[in-house]
Amino acid sequence: MQEHLIIIGGVAAGTKAASKARRENQDLKITLYTDEKYISYSACGTPYYIADVIKNENKLLVRSPEAFKTKENVDIKLLHRVTEITPENNKVTVKNLETEEEFEDEYTYLLIATGSRAFVPPVKGINLNNVYKLKSISDSIKIKQSLKSAKKAVIVGAGYIGLELAESFRESGLQTTIIEKAPQILGTLDPDMSGQIKTYLEEEKDVKIILKDSVVSFKGDEKGNLTQVQTEKGETVDADLAVIAVGVKPNIEIAKEAGIEIGESGAIRVNKRMQTSIPDIYAAGDCVETINRVTGKPAWVPLGSTANKHGRVAAINIVGGYAEFNGILGSAVTKIFEYTASVCGLNEKTARNTGIDYEVAIISHRDKSGYMPDAKEITLKILAERETGKFIGIQAIGKGDADKRVNVIATAMTADMTVSEFLNTDLTYAPPYSPSIDPLLVAAQVLEKKLEKSISSISPQQLHKYLEEKKPCAVVDIRKPEEFEQWHLENAKNISPEELEENFLSKNYENILICCDEGMKSYLESLKLKEKGCKNVTFIDGGINYLKNIPEYRKKINKG
Amino acid sequence: MQEHLIIIGGVAAGTKAASKARRENQDLKITLYTDEKYISYSACGTPYYIADVIKNENKLLVRSPEAFKTKENVDIKLLHRVTEITPENNKVTVKNLETEEEFEDEYTYLLIATGSRAFVPPVKGINLNNVYKLKSISDSIKIKQSLKSAKKAVIVGAGYIGLELAESFRESGLQTTIIEKAPQILGTLDPDMSGQIKTYLEEEKDVKIILKDSVVSFKGDEKGNLTQVQTEKGETVDADLAVIAVGVKPNIEIAKEAGIEIGESGAIRVNKRMQTSIPDIYAAGDCVETINRVTGKPAWVPLGSTANKHGRVAAINIVGGYAEFNGILGSAVTKIFEYTASVCGLNEKTARNTGIDYEVAIISHRDKSGYMPDAKEITLKILAERETGKFIGIQAIGKGDADKRVNVIATAMTADMTVSEFLNTDLTYAPPYSPSIDPLLVAAQVLEKKLEKSISSISPQQLHKYLEEKKPCAVVDIRKPEEFEQWHLENAKNISPEELEENFLSKNYENILICCDEGMKSYLESLKLKEKGCKNVTFIDGGINYLKNIPEYRKKINKG
Repeated sequence: MQEHLIIIGGVAAGTKAASKARRENQDLKITLYTDEKYISYSACGTPYYIADVIKNENKLLVRSPEAFKTKENVDIKLLHRVTEITPENNKVTVKNLETEEEFEDEYTYLLIATGSRAFVPPVKGINLNNVYKLKSISDSIKIKQSLKSAKKAVIVGAGYIGLELAESFRESGLQTTIIEKAPQILGTLDPDMSGQIKTYLEEEKDVKIILKDSVVSFKGDEKGNLTQVQTEKGETVDADLAVIAVGVKPNIEIAKEAGIEIGESGAIRVNKRMQTSIPDIYAAGDCVETINRVTGKPAWVPLGSTANKHGRVAAINIVGGYAEFNGILGSAVTKIFEYTASVCGLNEKTARNTGIDYEVAIISHRDKSGYMPDAKEITLKILAERETGKFIGIQAIGKGDADKRVNVIATAMTADMTVSEFLNTDLTYAPPYSPSIDPLLVAAQVLEKKLEKSISSISPQQLHKYLEEKKPCAVVDIRKPEEFEQWHLENAKNISPEELEENFLSKNYENILICCDEGMKSYLESLKLKEKGCKNVTFIDGGINYLKNIPEYRKKINKG
Repeated sequence: MQEHLIIIGGVAAGTKAASKARRENQDLKITLYTDEKYISYSACGTPYYIADVIKNENKLLVRSPEAFKTKENVDIKLLHRVTEITPENNKVTVKNLETEEEFEDEYTYLLIATGSRAFVPPVKGINLNNVYKLKSISDSIKIKQSLKSAKKAVIVGAGYIGLELAESFRESGLQTTIIEKAPQILGTLDPDMSGQIKTYLEEEKDVKIILKDSVVSFKGDEKGNLTQVQTEKGETVDADLAVIAVGVKPNIEIAKEAGIEIGESGAIRVNKRMQTSIPDIYAAGDCVETINRVTGKPAWVPLGSTANKHGRVAAINIVGGYAEFNGILGSAVTKIFEYTASVCGLNEKTARNTGIDYEVAIISHRDKSGYMPDAKEITLKILAERETGKFIGIQAIGKGDADKRVNVIATAMTADMTVSEFLNTDLTYAPPYSPSIDPLLVAAQVLEKKLEKSISSISPQQLHKYLEEKKPCAVVDIRKPEEFEQWHLENAKNISPEELEENFLSKNYENILICCDEGMKSYLESLKLKEKGCKNVTFIDGGINYLKNIPEYRKKINKG
């Protein structure tokens, strides 16, 4: 009898698995059911369609159902919802959403690639006109349509999608307010890093951001059109367009009902071969949990790039080959106007939660040789485990070339490289591409010194506590007097590097905290002072240029 | 007695070592002699100064001699040439080039950082006005001055500097001819890769390129101004500006005379700690040879990024610390108009010369999601050792984001990663930055299949030979008929993928060579045919879009 692979879901993982299985096995019967009108589309591209960077929604379609049928011999059933899986007899129940007709189909292998859905909180007025979520192409068509007449938008949620939408809305001339429950935007970054982006959005892009608050109701006029958004803390924001982008949830219900094991993250548990707890049933994409390679623990990080890899691995195993998916690092990138925010691995928050003892370096640096007119700033924050010296995470933000640098550390992390080993890496250099010593190597040098305990530094978060607790210390700022006058920390003293060396060695300060512009000069000065025998010297990570854009510090920093 | 470090040379390695030594040791006396007027400048930035991207030459100066004196307590002696080293008594003889005065100075440690100089072949008329080399800031000031009145330029040499200059000259409106002795431009790339750039320069940028020829004389008018350049093969090129950029030579004479060992590459031999064969004498930067990490053999690859690292390692060891420089991968990048050309490790030529059995994948791919309007093409050529499956080299060219992708493979090479291990890497993805499966991962997948011998492909160079020898084969082109009509290989048959599968399995061809647009579709088709049991199928690396820009193929490809 001909073997039959049934795939549930037609976006990244499902279609990737269909193509791959077909290439590896010409005799397999393959049927793909999806309850959507489209298959094989780029969900990640929808914000760019809304922004009209992509003019036509058809551009988002990677392959048409017809191409799948004729070229790959995969039977694609659009608008067909699988309503039940009965593993006992290897059957699925399918409902044709157009005709309402129900029927059964029998599989040899089943792949669950049901993806995720936008989480929509149960808020009053959620069904008003012009209140949307963004998950599918259909959603994005409606939002793009609304944009034509809208004047004032509210975005609920300050994650990747929320911020990408903020760009589209501002570029279309809308007043834009973001409401976020958490105390920071972009939860995958540490608050000091995401704080830079918040300052940028508010001050350069005129986006209003409300943190630590949530929407309690959407209000409308007599025609049922949205007019206002009300928050828990009592704010009222006028709006004629709202998008809810508070996150996604894995579509696991059908798997759960079939008795398939669900992991602790709430997504379907699979082994490295993408097999579920029931033989012959595989799962892939946004609906499954995988292992975080850094912590070794289960994690649910739904991303299109991961879904593609899942689909490939599942297909190879289904056709009798052998492949493993060895977990994720949580690599991600997003573009927010001219800003790039990119991450991989753990941040300070997740490292602390996992109980990893880590060291961190923060460096702001031009992405190209400083004399190139188009050189732009990037800030790197790199974490390494103290015990092993291995990289455990990187965050890179800025208007310059940040994302590809994260991929370099992602590769180092996959190879289990230590910071010292990485310092041997021979990176390319030419003035239009990087400084002669790449910012990655600069950050790794600082990190190595900190791991060796040759120097110590204080992070913005630690410093905040330190200053609040009024611990005895001398904060010295080694920038030029004119720079000091513009912005400086409360109670800081402006001292030239030369004076610093002369004066501070003889005195017995509890702790000298050295501050400069970007964290490099104070690092070098602290190296010098240490070399001279001064033990109690610490530099401030990132320098004043970093601190001054962290919202909490804006109060603590005196301007002139 | 106070220890004294004397450094000869004041560009990258020399100044880096001075700063680093000072930071690590406050008591050391440091003197730096240079025969130039400038120190601590970016030689790599000079083409951008000439192109007026950088308006003022002072921008190229990283640090001033004054800053070195006051901030670092390093005594900088400009226009002072060290004429002799006498290791017997730890002395150098120095000549003040302004006063002609000579004197001796005594060192505890000596660092030779004499760099390299432009090689100028002994050609008639080399001293005519408007014939230059490009090595120092002074050279670049003269060339920039000449540009104002020049109309027709000749560049001798088609390496990085030659091509960077071609851009400056064309952008300034000059007719520009490049004369290169080798049969290809950019010798660090394989000829099929550099051929793409040659076609681009000739057809899109109107740069004339003469290969396999060299200059025999420069002719001038009665005022001694350049008017013509004559080549060995009898070409005459009108020119009122010429720059010789045929390469550089290490400045080793003073070291050699002092009895310091010179390596087989012709540069100063040092150990990993940058020590020469004479105790207390170190060497760093363009004047030393290092180890190629891939081959394990000595190599001379003068680059600013390497020089910086050399300087750092030498300084640490001089002050009593311990540091190693573990060799180079030969990572480099250059910008040629909108094109990027970037390399790391071995190419096919150098792999063959080293006797390494390798496998190669060539992939052309958009650098971003295909639907993003600013997505641009890049071509990756990745090499892995057949026995170990480890990466041994990458070349990346194109108008898209190529260079940072080379850094990812450079990191993988430093970590000794295999292609299969790399496929676990979790790279970032968002439509403005990359396709959902990064071109690096696509290329690594193809390479893995080739290493496993699941598929076979033929490189442009092998194909050329194959076709010349008229070996029995069927060349089938699976692109659309309208694409086929535009360009196709001689004797190729246009067959749809569907027909291919139907027809070719039954027939007993010696070899089926499958060609598509960019090498991916033919790769996928050959996987399918192999799966169906067809053994004699091979795909053509890179596809027609790659072949059609290789100069040798332009004759063999029929246009319509």
